[in-house]
Amino acid sequence: MTDRRGDRRGGRTGVWFAGARGSVATTAVAGAAAVRTGLAGAAGLVAETGDFRGAGLPALSDLVFGGHDVVQTPLVKRAEQLASAGVLPAAVAAAVRPDLLAADAEIRDGHDGGEPPSAAAERLAADMTAFRDRHGLDRVVVVNVSSTEPPAPRRPEHQDLDALERAIAAGDEVLPPSSTYAYAAFRAGCPFVDFTPSTGPRLPALDALARSRGLPYAGSDGKTGETLLRSALAPMFAARALRVLAWSGTNLLGGGDGATLADPAAAASKTASKQRGLAQLLGRPVDGELHIDYVPDLGDWKTSWDHVLFEGFLGTRMTLQFTWEGCDSALAAPLVLDLARFTARAHEAGEAGALVPLAFFFKDPAGTTDHRLDAQYTALREWAARRLGAGAGAGERPEESA
Amino acid sequence: MTDRRGDRRGGRTGVWFAGARGSVATTAVAGAAAVRTGLAGAAGLVAETGDFRGAGLPALSDLVFGGHDVVQTPLVKRAEQLASAGVLPAAVAAAVRPDLLAADAEIRDGHDGGEPPSAAAERLAADMTAFRDRHGLDRVVVVNVSSTEPPAPRRPEHQDLDALERAIAAGDEVLPPSSTYAYAAFRAGCPFVDFTPSTGPRLPALDALARSRGLPYAGSDGKTGETLLRSALAPMFAARALRVLAWSGTNLLGGGDGATLADPAAAASKTASKQRGLAQLLGRPVDGELHIDYVPDLGDWKTSWDHVLFEGFLGTRMTLQFTWEGCDSALAAPLVLDLARFTARAHEAGEAGALVPLAFFFKDPAGTTDHRLDAQYTALREWAARRLGAGAGAGERPEESA
Amino acid sequence: MTDRRGDRRGGRTGVWFAGARGSVATTAVAGAAAVRTGLAGAAGLVAETGDFRGAGLPALSDLVFGGHDVVQTPLVKRAEQLASAGVLPAAVAAAVRPDLLAADAEIRDGHDGGEPPSAAAERLAADMTAFRDRHGLDRVVVVNVSSTEPPAPRRPEHQDLDALERAIAAGDEVLPPSSTYAYAAFRAGCPFVDFTPSTGPRLPALDALARSRGLPYAGSDGKTGETLLRSALAPMFAARALRVLAWSGTNLLGGGDGATLADPAAAASKTASKQRGLAQLLGRPVDGELHIDYVPDLGDWKTSWDHVLFEGFLGTRMTLQFTWEGCDSALAAPLVLDLARFTARAHEAGEAGALVPLAFFFKDPAGTTDHRLDAQYTALREWAARRLGAGAGAGERPEESA
Amino acid sequence: MTDRRGDRRGGRTGVWFAGARGSVATTAVAGAAAVRTGLAGAAGLVAETGDFRGAGLPALSDLVFGGHDVVQTPLVKRAEQLASAGVLPAAVAAAVRPDLLAADAEIRDGHDGGEPPSAAAERLAADMTAFRDRHGLDRVVVVNVSSTEPPAPRRPEHQDLDALERAIAAGDEVLPPSSTYAYAAFRAGCPFVDFTPSTGPRLPALDALARSRGLPYAGSDGKTGETLLRSALAPMFAARALRVLAWSGTNLLGGGDGATLADPAAAASKTASKQRGLAQLLGRPVDGELHIDYVPDLGDWKTSWDHVLFEGFLGTRMTLQFTWEGCDSALAAPLVLDLARFTARAHEAGEAGALVPLAFFFKDPAGTTDHRLDAQYTALREWAARRLGAGAGAGERPEESA
Repeated sequence: MTDRRGDRRGGRTGVWFAGARGSVATTAVAGAAAVRTGLAGAAGLVAETGDFRGAGLPALSDLVFGGHDVVQTPLVKRAEQLASAGVLPAAVAAAVRPDLLAADAEIRDGHDGGEPPSAAAERLAADMTAFRDRHGLDRVVVVNVSSTEPPAPRRPEHQDLDALERAIAAGDEVLPPSSTYAYAAFRAGCPFVDFTPSTGPRLPALDALARSRGLPYAGSDGKTGETLLRSALAPMFAARALRVLAWSGTNLLGGGDGATLADPAAAASKTASKQRGLAQLLGRPVDGELHIDYVPDLGDWKTSWDHVLFEGFLGTRMTLQFTWEGCDSALAAPLVLDLARFTARAHEAGEAGALVPLAFFFKDPAGTTDHRLDAQYTALREWAARRLGAGAGAGERPEESA
Repeated sequence: MTDRRGDRRGGRTGVWFAGARGSVATTAVAGAAAVRTGLAGAAGLVAETGDFRGAGLPALSDLVFGGHDVVQTPLVKRAEQLASAGVLPAAVAAAVRPDLLAADAEIRDGHDGGEPPSAAAERLAADMTAFRDRHGLDRVVVVNVSSTEPPAPRRPEHQDLDALERAIAAGDEVLPPSSTYAYAAFRAGCPFVDFTPSTGPRLPALDALARSRGLPYAGSDGKTGETLLRSALAPMFAARALRVLAWSGTNLLGGGDGATLADPAAAASKTASKQRGLAQLLGRPVDGELHIDYVPDLGDWKTSWDHVLFEGFLGTRMTLQFTWEGCDSALAAPLVLDLARFTARAHEAGEAGALVPLAFFFKDPAGTTDHRLDAQYTALREWAARRLGAGAGAGERPEESA
Repeated sequence: MTDRRGDRRGGRTGVWFAGARGSVATTAVAGAAAVRTGLAGAAGLVAETGDFRGAGLPALSDLVFGGHDVVQTPLVKRAEQLASAGVLPAAVAAAVRPDLLAADAEIRDGHDGGEPPSAAAERLAADMTAFRDRHGLDRVVVVNVSSTEPPAPRRPEHQDLDALERAIAAGDEVLPPSSTYAYAAFRAGCPFVDFTPSTGPRLPALDALARSRGLPYAGSDGKTGETLLRSALAPMFAARALRVLAWSGTNLLGGGDGATLADPAAAASKTASKQRGLAQLLGRPVDGELHIDYVPDLGDWKTSWDHVLFEGFLGTRMTLQFTWEGCDSALAAPLVLDLARFTARAHEAGEAGALVPLAFFFKDPAGTTDHRLDAQYTALREWAARRLGAGAGAGERPEESA
Repeated sequence: MTDRRGDRRGGRTGVWFAGARGSVATTAVAGAAAVRTGLAGAAGLVAETGDFRGAGLPALSDLVFGGHDVVQTPLVKRAEQLASAGVLPAAVAAAVRPDLLAADAEIRDGHDGGEPPSAAAERLAADMTAFRDRHGLDRVVVVNVSSTEPPAPRRPEHQDLDALERAIAAGDEVLPPSSTYAYAAFRAGCPFVDFTPSTGPRLPALDALARSRGLPYAGSDGKTGETLLRSALAPMFAARALRVLAWSGTNLLGGGDGATLADPAAAASKTASKQRGLAQLLGRPVDGELHIDYVPDLGDWKTSWDHVLFEGFLGTRMTLQFTWEGCDSALAAPLVLDLARFTARAHEAGEAGALVPLAFFFKDPAGTTDHRLDAQYTALREWAARRLGAGAGAGERPEESA
């Protein structure tokens, strides 16, 4: 591996999106090009901050993009839509056209059920492998940024890899699409990142598959807004012995995600993931509803209002309210790039299974129940410090994963 | 020392307030009695959380209260006022009457300039010493909860203890009242806590005095509301590489503190202390004004509104707003009790100078520029862990202070 | 009629509450006494403002209280509970004890279904009549402040008075409790005010009954918080040609009302009543959900957060958010007193049917679809001006009601 | 005059901006073209709503633009800047290029002091007259949208037209620039609109001049955001007898206006204008500061946070907070177009002096102290109704102005 920066490892890295034509993937592809070429600064990219220099992460310029999607809209057109919605600067959308065209040429037909599962898995895996071979990539990280699924029904086959593979072979649609992507990725020797609250790789059978192939995975559900704030604020109440009585939240969002979550079944995945974290942060369940409302005219923007009722000295009741107004794609896209780079590095270092040190990025982190933002950040930096200066590949001692 | 709980150290501890008839001191005296007797829970008391069990802090039942004040309103009357303002539960105010009367009997005439400095210092110190002797206390922690002073003019004598003592002897009013209290405390062999943004012990000459007498001190400016939130939230922006462009704040407060801060000179101390911390948290100064407005009808309640404008991926501008509505005395009083207990323990353990591990409690922590709440909390817990099980007094190895 | 103030009419007026032991009724009884005796000012009482002097409203000192309730908690105890929750000043609760005892003596067993409808109506009406006779009152206004009912199923008998009376006689539970109260009131010759979103008198058959007996009624659903603001703000957007795209709202409330509304069926009445008004104010339905969440620890306090997304010149999207933090009983109780006084005056003046000029007080005003607060206020003042100086009783020309 | 719509009057109308290259004027010129040609809808334009159809206002297509400015940036460039800041849609900025070029050709050098006053006034008036003649306009309305001035020192000459004209002739800089524009406009026979809080025509001497020439004027200080809300909300508190104890506000704004108002002297004009209105709305001065903070990165966007502390029944304290996030130019530009059209119609109808019915548009309305938004809107509609169907020009009966 040629390492132009001296401290960089990870080699040429493919980033393969499930949902490659969505807002997040489009912004990630366009943004990576814009930052790489100096059109835009590095704001939002955790991997570019001082704490992670020298940790051997692949550079932005080492990333090659492709993926699956069930829709056909060209990426150039998606970027224009995002520009007119104020998500991408118009100048960026225009300047990165070649990068969008290149990624577009690497997008294949996606999967959303209906195809015999065994054929689907084989086809998806073949697309990933061909992408890796075509570009001579050291590795391909598969990142799920497709629409949120409804919670999948539990099946006994999810507990056991052999049973799962028998069911798939028998044509049983035992896996939801997100898990089929993870299954295909692991079969193709690719690490997996689930940026959505869908099931993805979070099944014992898939965990076993990942470990047996020496593959790491990270997830679930990128922590971009309200939950990010909750994970920063809840530890403050705990440290100061202020007793939270109720934590209520309302999220208004438009865009594709809003439309998906207007379906109560899909919203259930997200709501459950958010409330689980809060109870764990506060050490017990607290009162308070969590609403996700679809407001089409908000487009890619999201507004969260949270109201925290807490009790201080001598039972005095006090409140904190916050309103967060963020652009979903602008918050999610850099994390997706970060996750691909951190996961690639973990794979290079020989890690397998759930990547607990990446909990910092997720609402519902795989392999841990510690939701405190600062503790997660400390864990990520410690992981990076251990990767620092370590030899690449076989020479590097893998660490235990959760 | 008889230690009824087995893990407790610190002995019988005096808490001597500068500003003993103010809302904070009154709530602290009443609240300590209410919690000790089970009338109220331990909400708001950091020292009572699991992290600090076994660290040898003096128990609430080991605290004895007294202090100085320039006003004469009886504590029982102050508590009634606080009850009718909704700050103290009426039942608490009534039930702790004996404790208020006991503390009232220990309040002496305060100092706010005008008295020859040398006589003032001697008188204040004598009151502290007499209190210690009268009750056979192991130590007395002096806690400044008096009104905020305007910033004091710098004097060369502040740099050098000998020069300072000569000036005092010569009748020069070289110290503001808060520093006179600290000087008197150190002369009386008492550790000192400055809960206000006033100058207090933060002068090289007073630091030298404290160290020469083996006395610790902590300060400045209790972190109870807006700044507490800022120190929890600013690290989140930094960790996520979100670039804060402007952080604006408006504080509405009534009560005695509000009236004091309506004087722009006094407000200057507080504003400076708040903005310093923000710049340090974010690594650079950012735009944004900070207002402190006096709204008499808010009484002891304080409302803070903060607006954070930040930049994410590709320059997208986003915002966070929060509104914090807190009762000042209910937030401050438990911290004052915590600080007395932690400082007493540090004294017992032989620490001297600025108590950096207590930065968690302050807007403008003495001896450090690290304002990150979580890092401060970790430091406090580590300090407590080191105190755990250590032998008391002479047998315990003092640690270096900043 | 003796008129001690010269301009006063209306005579001695009974106020008979359905829900006489609830927070609103208790606060109304206590508050009327406190204001009458100068213990408290007239804040919150519309009838006491300059616009309504001379309109012949009965004075606070002319009101006599009683009512029905299904619970037995003494009013004195309810007042103590309200005082310790910070709703009633403790001094008021203590001082008005005789007034609470007097009202308590006038409370009879309430009705919430289960009793043969004809017997129930007769019993309720007899209680009202006996109250009027016992105190020699000129009239009794019945005010429904009981818990919100779920929406009642529509019945053909609701359209026709004869059919309704036949069904009642036949033992058919054709009316929900709120309508049974209205039916009983009209049978007893009493005007009726529905302060809740329940069905109450809003049935053609009951409207016919009221008109046939020359009785006025007012309703529905007191406009105390979020809807009050909406009716003040929505006309602003309309007048400025700012196009509201979505209006979202979240209400957090504790107390009895919160518990009732935690039942989605009961909440449906309230939500429907709120959204209807918004669509009428804006001239068309707009996007946006409305949530009512039960947060027990808020007690009698209610927090509403509204988010308005609107479009200005050239399609620019802008937002307004507001947070209203109010004490439900303190907002509702004075309106209940106002309504009793205005309705008594309308009765005296010979009005019958829905009192359109009282729309100002309601979320879902009977007899009109104009929800604009200012237009409603203008209508109320114009009505009062017409009542001004007019002769009482028979000599006064009744006006057309809706 | 050809009247294509039948109900239209007002003739071809010039709109002459003082500050013709600023954001508001640029947005007004671009927006008028966009709405006229169907590129954008009529959101934000009061004159286009149903209430003003038939009132004889000049159509958007009857407006011709020009003005004065002290800067030279071409309008096309300004529009591009506004487009990249998200204020103008990029498609609009491109499509209206011919209209921007046409207006640009009509911009002359502005005035900001330093020139002998008599020469300045003559030059400005000559530019206005030439514009009217060049385009054969029925009238030219001069609209001040230049930067806010500091409050001007009072001069005795401001009280008397003769004294004023003598001072001007003597070379005395007796008028601030905004008033020099008004003086020039009146001398040129042009009605005047002051959209800023500067002095403008609000001097007895200039009022006398306007009346002597039969010219109407309107002002001052366009009501676009926080004050708009205050004038909608304050009457609600009054109507409900809720006693406002304190009304505090913080405004964060960037853009040219923000930079100007960062100068405390200029901000003083605006702050005074805002607080005056609030006291008048509430019937008495209330506590509460008003801050205007410059936050450069907000660009053309403005955020206002208001906190209202009020007292309800039995002294219960409650609060309302709102946050308004608006785009200044998008809010101001349509009002500027409205004002030009309403003022042109008033001129056509023979009105002179302060146009009280236009108070609806202003923070500090000339000729009235009624700040209630709804009352102002009613007055505007009544004025329009009187204009309806009335014959134009000499045949129409002028009404009394304030």
